[in-house]
Amino acid sequence: MQCLIIAAGKGHRLRSKGDSKPIIPIFGIPLIERVIRCAQEGGVDDFFVVTGYQGERVRVFLHHLADRLGIRITPIVNEDWEKENGLSVLKARDCLREPFLLLMADHLFDPSIVRKLIELPLADGEIALGVDGNRSNPLIDLEDVTRVKTEGGKIRDIGKNLKDYNGFDTGLFVCTPAIFDALERCEKETGDTSLSGAVRGLASSGRANAVDINGHFWIDVDDPEAFRRAENALLDHLRGKTHDGPVARFLNRPLSIRISRQLVNYSITPNQISLISFLFSMLAAGLFSLGGYPALFWGGVLAQFASVIDGCDGEVARLKFQTSDYGKWLDAVLDRYADAFLLFGLTWHAYVDRTEGLVLFVGFLAIIGSFLLSYTADKYDHLMGRQIRQGIGLRLGRDIRVFIIFLGAVLHLPFWTLLVIAVTMNLETIRRLVICRDHG
Amino acid sequence: MQCLIIAAGKGHRLRSKGDSKPIIPIFGIPLIERVIRCAQEGGVDDFFVVTGYQGERVRVFLHHLADRLGIRITPIVNEDWEKENGLSVLKARDCLREPFLLLMADHLFDPSIVRKLIELPLADGEIALGVDGNRSNPLIDLEDVTRVKTEGGKIRDIGKNLKDYNGFDTGLFVCTPAIFDALERCEKETGDTSLSGAVRGLASSGRANAVDINGHFWIDVDDPEAFRRAENALLDHLRGKTHDGPVARFLNRPLSIRISRQLVNYSITPNQISLISFLFSMLAAGLFSLGGYPALFWGGVLAQFASVIDGCDGEVARLKFQTSDYGKWLDAVLDRYADAFLLFGLTWHAYVDRTEGLVLFVGFLAIIGSFLLSYTADKYDHLMGRQIRQGIGLRLGRDIRVFIIFLGAVLHLPFWTLLVIAVTMNLETIRRLVICRDHG
Repeated sequence: MQCLIIAAGKGHRLRSKGDSKPIIPIFGIPLIERVIRCAQEGGVDDFFVVTGYQGERVRVFLHHLADRLGIRITPIVNEDWEKENGLSVLKARDCLREPFLLLMADHLFDPSIVRKLIELPLADGEIALGVDGNRSNPLIDLEDVTRVKTEGGKIRDIGKNLKDYNGFDTGLFVCTPAIFDALERCEKETGDTSLSGAVRGLASSGRANAVDINGHFWIDVDDPEAFRRAENALLDHLRGKTHDGPVARFLNRPLSIRISRQLVNYSITPNQISLISFLFSMLAAGLFSLGGYPALFWGGVLAQFASVIDGCDGEVARLKFQTSDYGKWLDAVLDRYADAFLLFGLTWHAYVDRTEGLVLFVGFLAIIGSFLLSYTADKYDHLMGRQIRQGIGLRLGRDIRVFIIFLGAVLHLPFWTLLVIAVTMNLETIRRLVICRDHG
Repeated sequence: MQCLIIAAGKGHRLRSKGDSKPIIPIFGIPLIERVIRCAQEGGVDDFFVVTGYQGERVRVFLHHLADRLGIRITPIVNEDWEKENGLSVLKARDCLREPFLLLMADHLFDPSIVRKLIELPLADGEIALGVDGNRSNPLIDLEDVTRVKTEGGKIRDIGKNLKDYNGFDTGLFVCTPAIFDALERCEKETGDTSLSGAVRGLASSGRANAVDINGHFWIDVDDPEAFRRAENALLDHLRGKTHDGPVARFLNRPLSIRISRQLVNYSITPNQISLISFLFSMLAAGLFSLGGYPALFWGGVLAQFASVIDGCDGEVARLKFQTSDYGKWLDAVLDRYADAFLLFGLTWHAYVDRTEGLVLFVGFLAIIGSFLLSYTADKYDHLMGRQIRQGIGLRLGRDIRVFIIFLGAVLHLPFWTLLVIAVTMNLETIRRLVICRDHG
């Protein structure tokens, strides 16, 4: 499906953030790039963008973006960008002969909404608008939003000053070319050149559908306040998407999100962050092996800090559309090395304190148990599917493992730390073998 | 698709192996169970079996088999089992109204042939026969086989005494119910009640198709000589299907196949074999840690022997239709434990000889490197697909790792063995990270 994006307005209320609204970056990624990337994730790869104010700058950016993403972006010029947004839509009339998505450059959204709109069966001569029926959605600026009255899946009325309404205009449409006729008719009959005017016209003949998008993320980034809300919403999104263990959830993630928020402003890549976290772990292992409580203490603190940083690679990747299978894999492999070096450092520390073969053996069991737990987690997911995992109460993931090492180092109990890890990790591995035998 | 299996004959030439031919076991699995299992793998789950000689015994066996496999097996009785095999097919006339597979209880085959037959588009009134065009196929008994003359995908003539022929009758058919009419007509017109006679009749009107199955395994198990050939073919099959490294291929596999050939006669399960191999490895690790060259030597020999046995679990599983995802996973997890214990035993041995921290560190690197290699192999397959693996010359699999340990122990070089493993395994892991980055 083709996609038309309106990026012509001046956006004067956001001028504190930048002069050309579509290319104002939010966490390092310009607004219009976010819109295009999310539409792309939703299944679109042929874009038309109506430019206006500072059009040349926007068009240069889009030209490079098309190259970078390997998609088609056709710019369309609207000299009348100071007038209503309906005129911008009309400029695309000659390019679009089939049903198309219609998005706004300053409306961010979750790709699931685009998928919902694309899948909608749309009759000739009709359009559909994503409508948010959640009247207490905290991301909405009630002063500015366009209100919608719907009934049985049809839009009955639309406008900023509606008194009787039950939803909000998300600015996310799927249209047949009938929208162009509706815009022209509306202008001729009422002099109104706004998109809402045309939608009202179609609604009066029952040809404007409402698509319920309650619960899906969207936001109109219109002023600095909305910009701040959009930033927080994107950061909040980072919590929900991961299968975090308890330490990650309540300790690491709140800290790493704060750090990631800063990191996105630099050109550091997620894989570089993975490497930095790994180096911190190696340094912590080195401190462990030095001997003496101060080194042990600071090694523990550094190990926990590395574990926090280890969350940032994924966060930055998601905020900047840089997730990759390779990145996840590299992170997993480096984590295994980091775990092993931390435990070997701790073993050496404990062995220097107490030169007994038992210490080495327990250290060995801790290393092998940690490894087997990661090894079985992976095979487990792959072979046994998700349903069984729920049955296993505690995941005993890396967040817990490093936290135990941190606690053990700070409390000056290296041998007992190794013993706890050796026993729990190996028992849990054996338990997985038994559970999978019974369910496989 | 339904499947008809002819299991009525006496099979007197195989009486040295057992009195009721369909239930004569080959590597512990009765012939007819092999036929049913392979058809099942090919996509069939509704079976009709024509029984005759010792029919009651065969029917009791089939009843239990249906329960065990969760499939439907309907027995059909043919009192005239001493006459030609066409009569057995005719007995199924009332059960089969749609196209069906027609197999012989004493013809073993690869499931790929069944898939080929099922996928064939078959016109009303036609049949198709799997024809082997490889005239030098060593599994064929030229004295006994039925010969076929084909032309442009059609059978022109069929019979044991054909002079002009270009293929062999595999006894694997897909038929429409037209086969029943052809059998009756053939009997009425010529008095011939053989299946070949009916096929000749259909061939004369161009309704008998030939499906080329060159290169796929099949064998008619008619006499002790063919029985022996079938055994060898099944064993040979064990070599081809695995991704063996060089040590596995040239040393372990030839030995393990000999052992598996014996093991299939006992009720030991593949998972039990995995556990026994694991226990041998643990014993070898124990011997390593005892200290002294004799213990080191015998530990090395035992480790290599455990590696040979480690091949038997998969072989027995394949010979007895007992492969399972859980079995493969258990084997992999136990292998990781076994590797780690062997290397820790060796490290301890080397450390007692030479009490230096360096020995412990090198031993640690050997353990972590071996582990990471297995860990990356798995993720590697999963994420990067098969195409890249070809690029990595040496797989450095477990067969090589244990062989290095064996050599090092026998040559009394524990520290150098650890050093070689530490360097090669970690370098290969790093190389994989680089290759995947470039290809991912």
